[in-house]
Amino acid sequence: MSQAEVYSAAGFGRAVPRGSRPAILVVDFSYGFTDTRYPTAATMAAQIAATRRLTDLARSKNFPVIYTTIAFHAGELGLLPWLKKAPGMAALVKGTRLVEIDRATGVQPVDAIIEKKGASAFHGTGLAALLAGAGVDTLIVTGATTSGCVRASVVDAVQSGFHVLVPRDCCADRAQAPHDANLYDIAQKYGDVTDADDVHDWLIGLPSPD
Amino acid sequence: MSQAEVYSAAGFGRAVPRGSRPAILVVDFSYGFTDTRYPTAATMAAQIAATRRLTDLARSKNFPVIYTTIAFHAGELGLLPWLKKAPGMAALVKGTRLVEIDRATGVQPVDAIIEKKGASAFHGTGLAALLAGAGVDTLIVTGATTSGCVRASVVDAVQSGFHVLVPRDCCADRAQAPHDANLYDIAQKYGDVTDADDVHDWLIGLPSPD
Amino acid sequence: MSQAEVYSAAGFGRAVPRGSRPAILVVDFSYGFTDTRYPTAATMAAQIAATRRLTDLARSKNFPVIYTTIAFHAGELGLLPWLKKAPGMAALVKGTRLVEIDRATGVQPVDAIIEKKGASAFHGTGLAALLAGAGVDTLIVTGATTSGCVRASVVDAVQSGFHVLVPRDCCADRAQAPHDANLYDIAQKYGDVTDADDVHDWLIGLPSPD
Amino acid sequence: MSQAEVYSAAGFGRAVPRGSRPAILVVDFSYGFTDTRYPTAATMAAQIAATRRLTDLARSKNFPVIYTTIAFHAGELGLLPWLKKAPGMAALVKGTRLVEIDRATGVQPVDAIIEKKGASAFHGTGLAALLAGAGVDTLIVTGATTSGCVRASVVDAVQSGFHVLVPRDCCADRAQAPHDANLYDIAQKYGDVTDADDVHDWLIGLPSPD
Repeated sequence: MSQAEVYSAAGFGRAVPRGSRPAILVVDFSYGFTDTRYPTAATMAAQIAATRRLTDLARSKNFPVIYTTIAFHAGELGLLPWLKKAPGMAALVKGTRLVEIDRATGVQPVDAIIEKKGASAFHGTGLAALLAGAGVDTLIVTGATTSGCVRASVVDAVQSGFHVLVPRDCCADRAQAPHDANLYDIAQKYGDVTDADDVHDWLIGLPSPD
Repeated sequence: MSQAEVYSAAGFGRAVPRGSRPAILVVDFSYGFTDTRYPTAATMAAQIAATRRLTDLARSKNFPVIYTTIAFHAGELGLLPWLKKAPGMAALVKGTRLVEIDRATGVQPVDAIIEKKGASAFHGTGLAALLAGAGVDTLIVTGATTSGCVRASVVDAVQSGFHVLVPRDCCADRAQAPHDANLYDIAQKYGDVTDADDVHDWLIGLPSPD
Repeated sequence: MSQAEVYSAAGFGRAVPRGSRPAILVVDFSYGFTDTRYPTAATMAAQIAATRRLTDLARSKNFPVIYTTIAFHAGELGLLPWLKKAPGMAALVKGTRLVEIDRATGVQPVDAIIEKKGASAFHGTGLAALLAGAGVDTLIVTGATTSGCVRASVVDAVQSGFHVLVPRDCCADRAQAPHDANLYDIAQKYGDVTDADDVHDWLIGLPSPD
Repeated sequence: MSQAEVYSAAGFGRAVPRGSRPAILVVDFSYGFTDTRYPTAATMAAQIAATRRLTDLARSKNFPVIYTTIAFHAGELGLLPWLKKAPGMAALVKGTRLVEIDRATGVQPVDAIIEKKGASAFHGTGLAALLAGAGVDTLIVTGATTSGCVRASVVDAVQSGFHVLVPRDCCADRAQAPHDANLYDIAQKYGDVTDADDVHDWLIGLPSPD
């Protein structure tokens, strides 16, 4: 069998049901990842712009828009094993510009910002509770990087009970091969990989929550 | 810059410190994944044998050996979004042979078995508590599949506060490209990718816990 | 100020909004807690009957009914700190009668059963994901014991993003003083303490989910 | 049987093993709870002083000292069910004085500060990972309030795999009856209730970590 046949026989890659209560998760479009003066960043202006079109629309319809940022308290830096494997992340310290959400995203004061300590937007954060409290059923995941924090957040989103959509042109990475490989895994196992136009059209047609 | 230079500049890919209290996590070597009469399975006898050499050694030195299996209660099947995306997993029902740990692993009654509902061995399970209670500092992750449950478990392991080692010859997948792509991501961002001989030699030299 | 005035001034004790998508959580009505031949059990036939009236109704309207049971794998027993403080719980081993849900509850095959390793129905389990996947907004918590697993589950339920109702006549305990003290804390800080008649009338008036 | 006999027969109330790697958790000694100009606060200068004696000692021996504070992002306030039940907590907004740790605690820049969104220091936070990463085996829980955030944190601590000690004179509450009732539950089911002198003597005798 081909790889596609193997995956299909195993029951992967089916289309995700879309609910009626979406939220948009914008992963790590903070300056530490978006401003290439920092070594942890990459070029992602196009993906930020594509995401902003969706977040502006979602906010206008009263769907939650939630941003994440990696932000460490100084007292945590010496204790976390992740920072031994990926010490570049230790530059993301609370109170510095690196952890601020990039203004180009159009982030608003009404948007929740989730501070996280690892790759996933859910691990060790209140995000699942926030989504449950908001009655969300479908999570649109965007941001950076596809092969790191986006992938980890997508896996946790579906594990946490939410349908997942990933518009590929809203996801940025440092390199093309990991970007593509992770979108493949996501499309097979965790969420539907689509594009911003498709998500935009779907959001347009949804009624706002009461 | 090359991709390797980009990753290195971002502070990824450093060597993981190895502690003194390891445990071995064996992900989803259950018949549903190991016995190719089931469409969710793949060939992985070599990886099971390589893993067994490590688990036999670890057990003899009183280091914890922990197995996982995906196992759904019938009452959960209709409620979980993951089973819409990956409906093949819905065959893994409690009480069936598919959820039993493959005898070829050498699993023993003293080994804990974690039942999980998604990709990660940590998400919605008591694994992190079990490891903390056992005083574990370093988790060796093996099993199947590399691009699915192994990857998800590795990401959660380091996020949960444990150093992670992944012997590549103890990890199985349905296809080579996702296997390789995920080991690349792991090696850069989450844990050291090594082999069974290296892990074996390291375990041999460690003192047993009191 | 009186204690009541102190709590009111602190902004506690407000009424919980009731949503439209309830579920009933039945905590630990397993034989280990309900059958007084076991030292971990107490008399609770009346609370089981009062709960059954609600679960029968909920099931008939297609609202989820979820049971929990404490159930340890033999391989976990030596590793969990909770079993040092409360070693009586170590009798609750998978495969024994103690971990089975009491037939008097009217549990059905369609009902999910959550296996847990501690006091809370949420900690280290897939319950939050199950509720999110089912679109639940309000959790009715019943079971045993009020001062132990019910209290812990209530606290986690509201922390996980769900409104909480506790019918006091559906909650059992080994002693009256802890029962009363914990219902007081719950009523002030975590959920509305009411009775089975009130919950019954509310459920009757709710439309079934599509 | 008396209540004491019932609990003893059920296997509760045993002494907690003390490990060799403690940490101190100081729950919610932030101005919103310690400065009585705020309606959410209570008098707790004595408990702060008793806790400080322990934290100064622990820090001098290189044991982790971790503080928590409840701190909401403005974008979260409308979405969290807990703030409907306990709307007084909604005053605890990031950037305000209410969420700052009280200087009287002697908090130092090297100490980790955990921001939380509910009662428990563990729920939706990175605390369990931090403790695992630090190799902690025993958690000393202090702070405010005994019947709220201390109780919830103690339950989660033992569920997360740590032995728990609670020095009663380091725990503050708004009222005596809930303080006493919760220390009773803790002593029976979750951790040893002791006093600051006992913890001090134990810490003095422990070797510092390497």
